[in-house]
Amino acid sequence: MRVAVDVMGGDRAPAAILQGCWDAAALLTPDDRVLLVGDELVIRAGLAASELSAEKLTQYQVIPTTQVIGMDDSPVEAVRNKPKASINVMCDLVKKGEADVAISAGNTGACVAAAQLKMRTLPGVSRPGIAVVLPTFYGPVVICDVGANITPQPRHLQQYAIMAGAYGAAVAGIENPRVGILSIGEEDAKGTEMVKEARALMRDEPLINFIGNIEGRDIFKGVVDVVVCDGFVGNIILKFTEGITEGLFQTILAELQEFGSGAVDQFKPVMKKIYAKHDWQEYGGAPLLGVGGYCLICHGRSEARAIKNAIRVGQQLCRSGVNQKIVERIARSIPGRE
Amino acid sequence: MRVAVDVMGGDRAPAAILQGCWDAAALLTPDDRVLLVGDELVIRAGLAASELSAEKLTQYQVIPTTQVIGMDDSPVEAVRNKPKASINVMCDLVKKGEADVAISAGNTGACVAAAQLKMRTLPGVSRPGIAVVLPTFYGPVVICDVGANITPQPRHLQQYAIMAGAYGAAVAGIENPRVGILSIGEEDAKGTEMVKEARALMRDEPLINFIGNIEGRDIFKGVVDVVVCDGFVGNIILKFTEGITEGLFQTILAELQEFGSGAVDQFKPVMKKIYAKHDWQEYGGAPLLGVGGYCLICHGRSEARAIKNAIRVGQQLCRSGVNQKIVERIARSIPGRE
Repeated sequence: MRVAVDVMGGDRAPAAILQGCWDAAALLTPDDRVLLVGDELVIRAGLAASELSAEKLTQYQVIPTTQVIGMDDSPVEAVRNKPKASINVMCDLVKKGEADVAISAGNTGACVAAAQLKMRTLPGVSRPGIAVVLPTFYGPVVICDVGANITPQPRHLQQYAIMAGAYGAAVAGIENPRVGILSIGEEDAKGTEMVKEARALMRDEPLINFIGNIEGRDIFKGVVDVVVCDGFVGNIILKFTEGITEGLFQTILAELQEFGSGAVDQFKPVMKKIYAKHDWQEYGGAPLLGVGGYCLICHGRSEARAIKNAIRVGQQLCRSGVNQKIVERIARSIPGRE
Repeated sequence: MRVAVDVMGGDRAPAAILQGCWDAAALLTPDDRVLLVGDELVIRAGLAASELSAEKLTQYQVIPTTQVIGMDDSPVEAVRNKPKASINVMCDLVKKGEADVAISAGNTGACVAAAQLKMRTLPGVSRPGIAVVLPTFYGPVVICDVGANITPQPRHLQQYAIMAGAYGAAVAGIENPRVGILSIGEEDAKGTEMVKEARALMRDEPLINFIGNIEGRDIFKGVVDVVVCDGFVGNIILKFTEGITEGLFQTILAELQEFGSGAVDQFKPVMKKIYAKHDWQEYGGAPLLGVGGYCLICHGRSEARAIKNAIRVGQQLCRSGVNQKIVERIARSIPGRE
């Protein structure tokens, strides 16, 4: 696997991104290569301080860039007007076949735009979608889309079901995933027109093990493996999850304080274990499914650990050939109205 | 206050609904009346077994009905075809001025449809919206709409901000609420066309203390008091909250088990306290804001406690004259495009 990492993107870039790349050294097989895309001086200084063995150092390569897309830049404009920005160069490397995986914790919109523009969509795929793994008591649930496409067509959701299923099998070991569509009630008549049309498409598609509408609460009940939704709703619930989980732990600690510091100390190991299980950083990046190559989008707040884990996920995606599976299944699926 | 309670609606009806009405007896002032709407035999048997004092019993009145709208009935058809159903009769009582508040844990869609049809909207209000109070570490946050209107216009969201603000002031003591619109990023350019138009309307409205876009995670950070969104997104995050909270507590208990049953026993009082604070049943029903009269929609799984609390909220709404405030503010607001 050759992975191109955007060294300049993310709230903790470049330090945390580079550290994540060094921490991934132990994961690399002899054929793996890490292409460090960004400011040359910064990267070379990082390499010098990295304490990697001479042998490992040969697996890292510097790809100098001179522009940076900021977290608040307008995605489409930035991609067009900053051709030498790390996000653009990173996607160019995949486009030219010089890298298999692109990883960035930078501007998500720019990353989606650059990947779509340069890597193009896989044959048969209408629109890419971002998939995330949500850890639940009953196991991982894949949600797609969480923000690439905020006003999708029904056909896009049908394809998200196929793509997210292939991804879930590769990284979370979910076979023949049960697929649901996020809506506001179990009955067929519930939901927007888009949801109703998408449901009909999925129900009629033998490649999808479709279980029907899923309500927000069902996601946590072990009844579904893949949940599809539009990118607006998906993005909101993704960030909502982050907020409510942090808020709940904050509340628990505050209540424990009232029982004395002993109670807090006793609960901390439990909390750490749970936090680790619910920690998005453990899942590395979220793939932009449906583009020609692998593109992993990391949280803007990613620490070194998230970057290291994204490199691991990149290896899993390449080894399991998720994109080939997606192309095969999309070709066999019933075409929907665009 | 005269409150009409749908005795037949909800997963635990009629027993839990009636019990909630008896439990509310202590809250009733001498002028308050509870109109029990439903099967006469069931209600009379309940009254006989209620152990209420003779004096309190005079505050309860039976309104016999002969039809029931099921949880899975199609809302609009059921409201039209079952004129003697408890939900319809309950809303008729408010329409005729015989009750001030309607409370139901039955079919939400039917409740919204019946209230809109019979109670009509308040002067100037385009569409009603359901508001819920979400407890957070930093205090209550009101979210509107959570399911009355799944494809709203920008003007509806602007009105939700005004109505939910008046409600928040009345039941949660939030003065001059900070209002945000739920979207997928802080920048103005983020969101659907509807969200962008609604944001512009709210920004230009002096009656709204508007703080801009709110992401899912910000809801839990103490930066916002009222969050407006379309009813599709709102309903999904409402149920999502329920699922993730239950799932997280389930996870905590399972982890504590590994530390032995002593750890579980020690944590239980903490958990109970937090659970109570995060418990939707404490907030009783969610008001359908914007209709002519008060209509509180309770969770289908409501226990007696939720019904009792809904009666308490009904009293608060009547006493604080929320609807008069809504009418005044809507009249002073800048009219938006319908």
